[in-house]
This record gives sequence, C-alpha cells and structure tokens, in this order.
Amino acid sequence: MNQPAVGIVMGSNSDLDVMREAAEILQQLGVSYELTIVSAHRTPERMFDYAKQARERGLKVIIAGAGGAAHLPGMIASVTTLPVIGVPIHSSNSIDGWDSVLSILQMPSGVPVATVALDGAKNAGILAAQIIGVADQHVADKLKSYKTSLKEKVLNMVSEVKGEGFPNGFDA
Amino acid sequence: MNQPAVGIVMGSNSDLDVMREAAEILQQLGVSYELTIVSAHRTPERMFDYAKQARERGLKVIIAGAGGAAHLPGMIASVTTLPVIGVPIHSSNSIDGWDSVLSILQMPSGVPVATVALDGAKNAGILAAQIIGVADQHVADKLKSYKTSLKEKVLNMVSEVKGEGFPNGFDA
Amino acid sequence: MNQPAVGIVMGSNSDLDVMREAAEILQQLGVSYELTIVSAHRTPERMFDYAKQARERGLKVIIAGAGGAAHLPGMIASVTTLPVIGVPIHSSNSIDGWDSVLSILQMPSGVPVATVALDGAKNAGILAAQIIGVADQHVADKLKSYKTSLKEKVLNMVSEVKGEGFPNGFDA
Amino acid sequence: MNQPAVGIVMGSNSDLDVMREAAEILQQLGVSYELTIVSAHRTPERMFDYAKQARERGLKVIIAGAGGAAHLPGMIASVTTLPVIGVPIHSSNSIDGWDSVLSILQMPSGVPVATVALDGAKNAGILAAQIIGVADQHVADKLKSYKTSLKEKVLNMVSEVKGEGFPNGFDA
Amino acid sequence: MNQPAVGIVMGSNSDLDVMREAAEILQQLGVSYELTIVSAHRTPERMFDYAKQARERGLKVIIAGAGGAAHLPGMIASVTTLPVIGVPIHSSNSIDGWDSVLSILQMPSGVPVATVALDGAKNAGILAAQIIGVADQHVADKLKSYKTSLKEKVLNMVSEVKGEGFPNGFDA
Amino acid sequence: MNQPAVGIVMGSNSDLDVMREAAEILQQLGVSYELTIVSAHRTPERMFDYAKQARERGLKVIIAGAGGAAHLPGMIASVTTLPVIGVPIHSSNSIDGWDSVLSILQMPSGVPVATVALDGAKNAGILAAQIIGVADQHVADKLKSYKTSLKEKVLNMVSEVKGEGFPNGFDA
Amino acid sequence: MNQPAVGIVMGSNSDLDVMREAAEILQQLGVSYELTIVSAHRTPERMFDYAKQARERGLKVIIAGAGGAAHLPGMIASVTTLPVIGVPIHSSNSIDGWDSVLSILQMPSGVPVATVALDGAKNAGILAAQIIGVADQHVADKLKSYKTSLKEKVLNMVSEVKGEGFPNGFDA
Amino acid sequence: MNQPAVGIVMGSNSDLDVMREAAEILQQLGVSYELTIVSAHRTPERMFDYAKQARERGLKVIIAGAGGAAHLPGMIASVTTLPVIGVPIHSSNSIDGWDSVLSILQMPSGVPVATVALDGAKNAGILAAQIIGVADQHVADKLKSYKTSLKEKVLNMVSEVKGEGFPNGFDA
Repeated sequence: MNQPAVGIVMGSNSDLDVMREAAEILQQLGVSYELTIVSAHRTPERMFDYAKQARERGLKVIIAGAGGAAHLPGMIASVTTLPVIGVPIHSSNSIDGWDSVLSILQMPSGVPVATVALDGAKNAGILAAQIIGVADQHVADKLKSYKTSLKEKVLNMVSEVKGEGFPNGFDA
Repeated sequence: MNQPAVGIVMGSNSDLDVMREAAEILQQLGVSYELTIVSAHRTPERMFDYAKQARERGLKVIIAGAGGAAHLPGMIASVTTLPVIGVPIHSSNSIDGWDSVLSILQMPSGVPVATVALDGAKNAGILAAQIIGVADQHVADKLKSYKTSLKEKVLNMVSEVKGEGFPNGFDA
Repeated sequence: MNQPAVGIVMGSNSDLDVMREAAEILQQLGVSYELTIVSAHRTPERMFDYAKQARERGLKVIIAGAGGAAHLPGMIASVTTLPVIGVPIHSSNSIDGWDSVLSILQMPSGVPVATVALDGAKNAGILAAQIIGVADQHVADKLKSYKTSLKEKVLNMVSEVKGEGFPNGFDA
Repeated sequence: MNQPAVGIVMGSNSDLDVMREAAEILQQLGVSYELTIVSAHRTPERMFDYAKQARERGLKVIIAGAGGAAHLPGMIASVTTLPVIGVPIHSSNSIDGWDSVLSILQMPSGVPVATVALDGAKNAGILAAQIIGVADQHVADKLKSYKTSLKEKVLNMVSEVKGEGFPNGFDA
Repeated sequence: MNQPAVGIVMGSNSDLDVMREAAEILQQLGVSYELTIVSAHRTPERMFDYAKQARERGLKVIIAGAGGAAHLPGMIASVTTLPVIGVPIHSSNSIDGWDSVLSILQMPSGVPVATVALDGAKNAGILAAQIIGVADQHVADKLKSYKTSLKEKVLNMVSEVKGEGFPNGFDA
Repeated sequence: MNQPAVGIVMGSNSDLDVMREAAEILQQLGVSYELTIVSAHRTPERMFDYAKQARERGLKVIIAGAGGAAHLPGMIASVTTLPVIGVPIHSSNSIDGWDSVLSILQMPSGVPVATVALDGAKNAGILAAQIIGVADQHVADKLKSYKTSLKEKVLNMVSEVKGEGFPNGFDA
Repeated sequence: MNQPAVGIVMGSNSDLDVMREAAEILQQLGVSYELTIVSAHRTPERMFDYAKQARERGLKVIIAGAGGAAHLPGMIASVTTLPVIGVPIHSSNSIDGWDSVLSILQMPSGVPVATVALDGAKNAGILAAQIIGVADQHVADKLKSYKTSLKEKVLNMVSEVKGEGFPNGFDA
Repeated sequence: MNQPAVGIVMGSNSDLDVMREAAEILQQLGVSYELTIVSAHRTPERMFDYAKQARERGLKVIIAGAGGAAHLPGMIASVTTLPVIGVPIHSSNSIDGWDSVLSILQMPSGVPVATVALDGAKNAGILAAQIIGVADQHVADKLKSYKTSLKEKVLNMVSEVKGEGFPNGFDA
C-alpha cells in the first residue's frame, strides 16, 4: 500500500458513524487516507506516537474527531507541525455539543486546530482535500467538479420546488 | 527537601496570579507542595513525563490550572492514577470562561478530573488538603480549624452589618 | 458489616439510574460503599445529620448526585471536611443540564466540591477510588489495572475498525 | 423593637451593595424589615436556625440574596413554609450571573423560590411588600402610590426628551 | 361561587398540560382558584382588563404561564399591585426554554415578577399558597403538612433503595 | 403571471417544511409571492443575481430562510435595498438554533435584516404583509381581520377550558 | 408639523444614547420621524394608546427599543398592524444582552416583531427607511446612495491599509 | 512583487489590530502574504472578485477575519476551492463573540471553513504556514523551529517561577 495522504483518527468506534463521512468524501475526491482509533485519554502514548510519526510516515493532513472534553485534535497538534483538522462530535456525553466545539476551537496561541462544524466530518474531508489541492492539481480539479455538483443539486431542487406548484418568477 | 504531597502545575506563568492561591492555602493547611510550569500544548513531552513520574516521585494529588481549550488537567489524568484537580482559568483568550470549564469538566468515562469553580484555585488547594486529610489526621484537624475560621468571619460580618444600623431581630 | 469507605447519596430514586454506575465501578475497584437517598430540599435535617456524622462513621469520601438547582453536594460540603464529589444530573426538570452543572461547580471560596461531567457517576466512582488509593496500595493497583483495561478496549477497537476494511498504515 | 415583617439575608457583606436596595424600598413602602448575614456554606447551622425560627419569630417573607452556586434561598425554602424571594447576585466569582440565576430559579417540585432578576434586590423588596399587601391595606395603598410615581417619572422623561428637540406627534 | 383567591392564566390552551399542575396543588392545599386563557399578544385588551380588575374582584395572587417571548406575567404585573408569579413554559417555539425564562425573570426595576423554574407550575401553586398562608393560618397548616409529606416520600425511597440491596450504613 | 410582491427563498428544499408557512399566510392575506431555492454557499452567483434583480423585477420584500451558519438573508441584504426578512431555521446541523439566529440577527451597521423567531416563517409572511400593507389598504384590511381572528381563537379557548370544568370568575 | 412616517419609542431616556442613532439615520435618509418615551411596564396605558392610534395618526413604521425583559416591541405589535421593528438594548440590568434579544425576537405565531442586532438602532432606522422605500421612490433613491457610500468607505480603508505598507496584490 | 502565497482579508480596518498578528507570524515563518479590506456586506462584488481570482492570481490559502454576523469567510469559501481559514473577531457589536464564532464555524456540508479561536489571527497565520508547509520543506523547517521556540519559552518560565521561590521537585 502506498502511504496515504490523510490520517483520520477518532477516540472511539462510537465516533465512526460521524467520521466515516470524511473517509467517503476523500475517496470521492481521489485523496488517499488511513483511518484508525486513537484515544487521547485512554491511549495517550499511542496518540503521541501517531502524532510524532505522522510527517515522517508521509501523512500530509490529520483529521481528528472527538466529543465532550475533546482533547485529541489539540494534543496531536501539540506534537506535529502538520495541519490538524478537528471535528467536534455531538457524543452522548456532550452538553449539546458546546463542550466538543469549545475544547477543539479555543486552542492557545501557537498551536492551531482547523475546526469545522459540529459533526462536520464531511467538511473535514473536503478541507483536507483543499489542503492537498494547494499543490496537487489533480485534487484541485476534483474539487472544482465537486463544487459544480453542489450547484447542480441546488438547480435540481429549483425544478423540484417548481414542480410542486410554487410560483417562481425568477427562473421563469 | 522532602518530597511534597501536592503538585501544582499550569500552562503559563500568566496563570500564576490565579494559581498561587492554591499554594498559599496549602501552606496554611500544613500540606507540602511543589509548583511549576507544564504546558500540554507547548511541552507535551514534559507533561507526559511529569504525569508518569508523579506517583513514583511521591506526589499524592495533582492540581492543574488551564484556560481556553484547557487540556492540561485531562491529559495528566490520562497518564496517572493519582487524583487530578482541574482549575478552569478565565484567561484573556477565553470565551467568558465557558471553554475552560467545559474542556476540563466534561471528561469521558474512565478518566475523571475533579473540577472546581472558574478561577477557583483556592478551593483546589482545600480539596487537595481534604484528599490528603482522608488518611492524615493532622491535615484533617487543620481543615476543621479552617472551617471554624470561615464561620467566624461570617459572624464578624454579622456584627459589622449591625454596626451600620440595620435592624437585626435574629441576633437580638 | 464493616463501615464502607464511600457514601453515595442522591436526592431521589429517579437519580438511581445514573448514580448506580458509581456503585458498580467502586465494587469493581474493590472499594466498599453505601448508598441511600438524602434530599437537600425535602429532608434538610437528614442531610445535615448525614454530613455531620460522615467522618465519625468512618466514611472517607462522599459522592452526591443532584439535578436542577443542585444543592446537595455543596450543602454536604458545607458541613463536613471530607472530600465531596458532585455529580450533575441531567434530570427531567433541568435546562439542558446547565443548572445542575453550575449549581454544583461554582462553589464559593472555602467550600470546594469536586465536580465531574454531567451524568458522570462512573467517573465520580473512579475519582473516589483514586482518593482512597492515595493511601491504599490495593486500590491503587486496581486503578492501574483499570487504566490498562481502558487501553485494551481501544486496541480492540483498532482491530475492529481494521476488520471493517479501513486502510490503516499506522498499525501496519 | 416590634418584630419586622421581612427578613433580608445574604451570604456575605460583599452582597450588601446590592441587597441594601431591598431594605430601602421596604422602608419607603412602610414595611418593617431586619437584615443580617447568613451563609449557607459557611454557617449552615445558623442558616437552619434562621429558617426554622422565621415564622415563629413573626417574619412573613424572607428575601435571600446569593451569588455563584447560590444555595441560600433554596435551602431556607427547604426549611420554612414562608414565601422565600431569591435575588441572584452577579458576584465576582460568577460566570456572567448564569450560575446565580440557575441555582436559585431551578428549584425542584415542592420547594419554590420566588426568583427576581439578576441583582434585582429592589424588585425583591417590592415583591415582599406586594405579598404583605395582600392582607395589609396600608401597604397596598403605598404600592398603588409607588406605581403612580413610576408613571410620573416616565412622563417627566417624555418632557425632557421633547426639550432636547426631538419631534413628538403623540403628545402634541 | 365565592371569589377565588388565586387567578391562573396562560396564553393558550396548549399551555394547559403544564399549568393544570398549579390548579391541582392549590386544590390540594385548600386554596380556591380560577383558571382561564388570557393572551398578551392576541388579546391585549382582555389582558389589561383582567389585570385591572384583579384586586377589586378579590384575587390575591395571579399565576401567569407563558412560553417563548413570554410577556404575559410581566404585563399583568405592570397593571396590578398584586403579587404575580410567572411560570416559564418550554413551548414548542422556544429555544430550549431560555427565551421564556429570561422574558419573565429579567423584569426592570419597579415591576417584579416572582419567577419559578421552567415548567414549574406546581411550584407556582405552592408559592401562591405560601403567599396566602402569610395571613391565613389554615393554609399555613396545610403547607406544613405538605412539607411533611415531601419528607415522607423521601423516607419511603430510602426503604425502596435499601430493598434493592444497596448497603446503607446510615440508616442501619 | 403578474409579478409577485414577495420573494421567498431558502438554501435547500429541506427548509421547505418550515418556509411553506410563509407562502400559506401570504396567500391567506392576499399578497402575491414567488418561492424558489437559492443557496448562498452552493450557488453564490444565483444568489447575487436574485438579489440584484429583485427590485427591478418588482419584488417589494424578500423573505430568506436559512439554518446553521445562515448567510443567505444577510448576503441578499448586502446587494439590494429592499427590506429583507430573515428566518432562522433549526436545521439538523444547527447547535440548538443559536447559530442560525445569531448569523442572521447580528448584521453589521448599515445592512439590516429583519429577523423573526426561530422557525418563524409564518411570522415572516405576516411581517411581509405588514410592510406591503403600509401603502396597500387592501392588505392592511386583511391584516386587521387576521388580528381579529387571532383574538377569536383565544376566546374559543376560553370556552373550551371553561367546558373542562375549571372555575372562571372573570368571564362569569 | 406634518405627521411623521416613523415613530421611535423606548422605555426610558437611558435608552436614548442607543436609540438616537435611529433618528439620525432616518433624518439622513429623508424620512420624517417622531421620538418619545413609552414604557410597557410603567405606562402600559400610554403604550396601548400609542399603539392603537399609530396607524390613524399616520405612522407607517414603529421602532421600539428595550432592554432586559423587553416587552415594548412585542406589546405594541400585539395592538397595531403596522410593521414594528424591535431594537434589543444591552441595558445595565441585562444578562449580556441575551434577555433583550430573546424577549423581542421569539414572538409567538401571529404577531411578528422585525428584530435587529443588539444595540442596532441605526439598522432599525435603515430598515424603517427600506419599508417606506417600498412605495416611496425618493427614499429608495436615498437608500441606493447610502449603499454606495458604504462601499466607498470600504474602498477608502483599502487605501489606508495600503498606506500602512501592507502588500496588496489584488488592487495592484 | 512576486505573488504572495496567503491572502489576508477583513471587513473593516477596525479588525486590523487583531488581524495584523496573522501577517506578522507569516512574515516570521517566511511565508509571503498580501493584506487588504474586503467587506462581504458593504462590497459584495469586490468580495466575489477577490474569491474568484484568488487561485488564478496564485494565492494558496485565504485568511478571512470577521465579527458579529461574520459572513466573509464562508462566502469566500463558497466561491473558491482554496482552503479558507476563518478568524472570529470579538468586535464591538458582538454578543460576547458567540455570533462571530458560530457564523464562521457552522458552515453547511460541502463548503468548509477552517475556523480558529476567537481573535486567533496568529493561529490562523500558523495554520496557513502549516498548509503551505505540506509541500514546502523550507516552511516546514521554519515551523519546526517555531515549535521548538514555544517549548523554550515554557522552559524559561519554569526557571522564572523557580526564581520566585516556589518549591519544584520535578526539575530538581
């Protein structure tokens, strides 16, 4: 196996339902990835090893998802100089997601985490592809097509809503 | 120097104004302590070493203060089995303190942090003393006296307020 | 019966579903406990008696769970010098748990409550064991094994996720 | 001294700047009061005694002010059947006042506290007078005059603003 | 029909599920009441008439429940000098109840509303009875019995939990 | 087709369940409308074209609904000088609706958006009709009738609640 | 004096510092206005009279500013069918402005208030002008010029920042 | 001038005090940048042009700062496929920064914004450098040195605190 470009990690397999969206969109955008479980609080040494070896193993971006007091993205970012994308997860033990969001977003000066929306794993995958696409024209082209597909979906909705009988003077 | 019982750590010396209250009350309660700077995000290896060696060095309780995305208390708790007390600090980069509170409080199942009030370093020191006092009668006695002193301060206030001329039928 | 080390109290048996997790983990960690109903607002005298007699009865730590305007942990802490662990409960009359969290966490200077995550009764039990384990090597050993078991569960998840077909270069 | 009708209590003399407004408006409305310091967390027995003796001493309403994890109003209400008015105080250790508000407001079923606005001691005094005024025509008359005075102050503002040159077609 | 002592109003019959608890507890405590629909926003004149006539009709306390931008309690309080108890309701159009709570609680200086917990209609009823009970010994006695019944329910829970096999050294 | 007076837009047909209420009430109030899908983030050029052409096409008011980071209403308002009404939608990716509310409400000085309640599409339609009704007496009359119908619904509820047996001295 | 088009009201002259911005921008946009003090809670009858007479007096839009439990905009909207713009004010008795925002925004179905940003009186004035401008070409032209002036201010900033020496490839 | 790699934009020069930190750290890390004012709400066409031309002009990353209803980062991301970093700014018209944070963070699926902490412009610059450093070894080396410098600052603090006389067993 060639070394993948993006590493996706999360603290528990209960986060997999959310985080697999990152894997799926990366695949769709032609970006290789790996995915595994790394827990900041239950396997801190594994986390450190993962973060320390990331650049030398050839990873270019790390996506880390976590809920509650979500320390995984920030702690990985404390070790590596690769860009780290954090996905706050609305886990069962979360207070409406606020804890996950703030634990990931509010990193101190010097150690950024690129935070996306609550449960926004798909956007994390797209952002990772955008980062890869800075220097990789193939991925950049895929992203351009993806953007076009977003637009087309909306235009299809325009037709659907018109089909329901709503008056529409703009597209007349 | 004898090995101190309580380790007080914080991510930056800008936290010292808050955290020195923990040191002062421990001194007052006859509990030995040490105090140093350990940053989860800027010195992750130092943090790991600190946490790993804590029990073998003879520490009994760790007090960790942090602001913003406050990972220090939780990450230390991920490594050691000593009780860890977390002090959320309303640092300059905090959103009204909510980020500090939630990052410390909302730890996942298996790895508790004993959280005290925002900027509550004094209470962290008292709690550490209470933990020591479970098995140390000398400290337990000091705590009892301290509780009495709290009561006396209130009774002094009762007199002061009476002295201002407010009617007071209860203490008449 | 020997005097148990940890007292678990809550304001209503509707809190039992959450709080029994504290009892279960204490049992697993070899720490004796007792459990009963004590309501700050409906049986204030019982609460006072419980708190006043706690140390002399031989309790070492008290775990108190409460929801809404959660006064039980703080009021017990006002009477005893034992460490008191507060468990905010997301009860039916709570505003998303914020009331429970803040009523327990934000204790005034002089009277700490060791607060754990919302509905975090299991962590309250572990924290109580950590406090006992400061002076009790048997419990400290149990905690070390428990920490190892947490790690093993994560490593099992690593295998499971690999089994689902996700690429994994790190554990290759 | 005749027994006053309203008891005003607070946990610390640092709350006096807010709470003296309750005393002043009661005086203005012709309702007798007493005022003292009672701390739930530092003098729990004094608090219990105060609450237990309140009705027999002749008090008709209790106003209790507290900040942070504000347990004083709710705990007094747990002991007495008199109406208890709670004043959340935005104390220095409060998280924007939310802790004070929620700790007082969110009382469980069976034990109400009549909560007023943050730092709303004046309104607490008026509410106490309204409660006395249910059966006391003299106080009811004073309240009626007070309501008229509120209206007159607004009408004076109308003139002032007109005097500043703003057009005003309504009062033309 | 004799004139009832307590008026219960709400903006819509969709609030009745919550507000009937106020009626039930008043009945249980021997306090007469009336209950009707009065909407601040849809029947403002009816609301004004209700508030204006309240004292002369013989009402002693008004309980007003409302959700969302909850103006009913405060607007009634702007017209009458009777004590007004506000019940914030977590209605379907509410943002987690915060709008209801803040719209009722945060009344300006001069016009208090005695606010109870979110959906706390039962406590509103008890508070109304406490206000009546200031001058009505019969109701005061009922409240004393009610307080005793609260205690007894807790003591029954103590037995139940013991029956489930939990160790209980306190009541041994 | 005559040019409609009100343009209703939303970012996705998943918002249609909420937004169709705006269409329905406009129809009921005799105000013509058009409705289509315009996404700020997926079809930014379409959005700009829509906003730029709105006044020249004869629209008088625009209603824009959006959830999460809700940019549609504000961005339309940045292009047109027509009044823009924003409907915050509690979409599935929203944090309890707060993101939608704040993204729409907190527009900078110079570019207002008339914001209504969370999921308040019906009120957006009524507000649009009120704006049309400033200069259109026919619509103003319809609004007057609508206000009367709101009152009548409440009076019907009064009867219903009376029918359930609740005492009602006010309407006696 | 000709009847002004916009009525600006607020509960107290302490709100005037914020609300005069509405008057100033209306003057600048060539829209006549009147301004006075109307308090929902202290002069409820004056408020009712103001709202009832508004349309017949010739007002076209009402701007109402209020802080804390801000009932003025919603109560005026309950009486009149004119569009009502609400300005939440961060008054001294407000909890960070949240109470003002939610009390104005979260109006029930049937009675909208067009809410602008916290302290957004200037935007309220612009929105009122936009509403007038729906049928008044003179005001619409003024709004177009105002929009151009906003753009020019930004372009001036572009030059200023360039003048500070920051590289700027876009405007090169 | 060579085309810079990072474009820094903000809606107003009042944001410059925060945003210049992004420029300074980029300079320190050897990454070229440009900086200008682009307002989503006051110069929407300029914003669109900026975003559309960004990739073809040679920009690799865009950093956009905005406060209140902060639409600039998300709207730029709707047009370009470059990675966009959003900096929420605690501007004067913000509600404690929450509006800025949520307006930037909570982007819908398909259009990510890499959000950093409130006022976290320095971290935005570091994150931009990390993205450049994925394919640029020179920048990656600079980042490594920067990380070392962060560690050294902490170790200097360790000495300072020791110098103040606090006991320190860990570094003994």
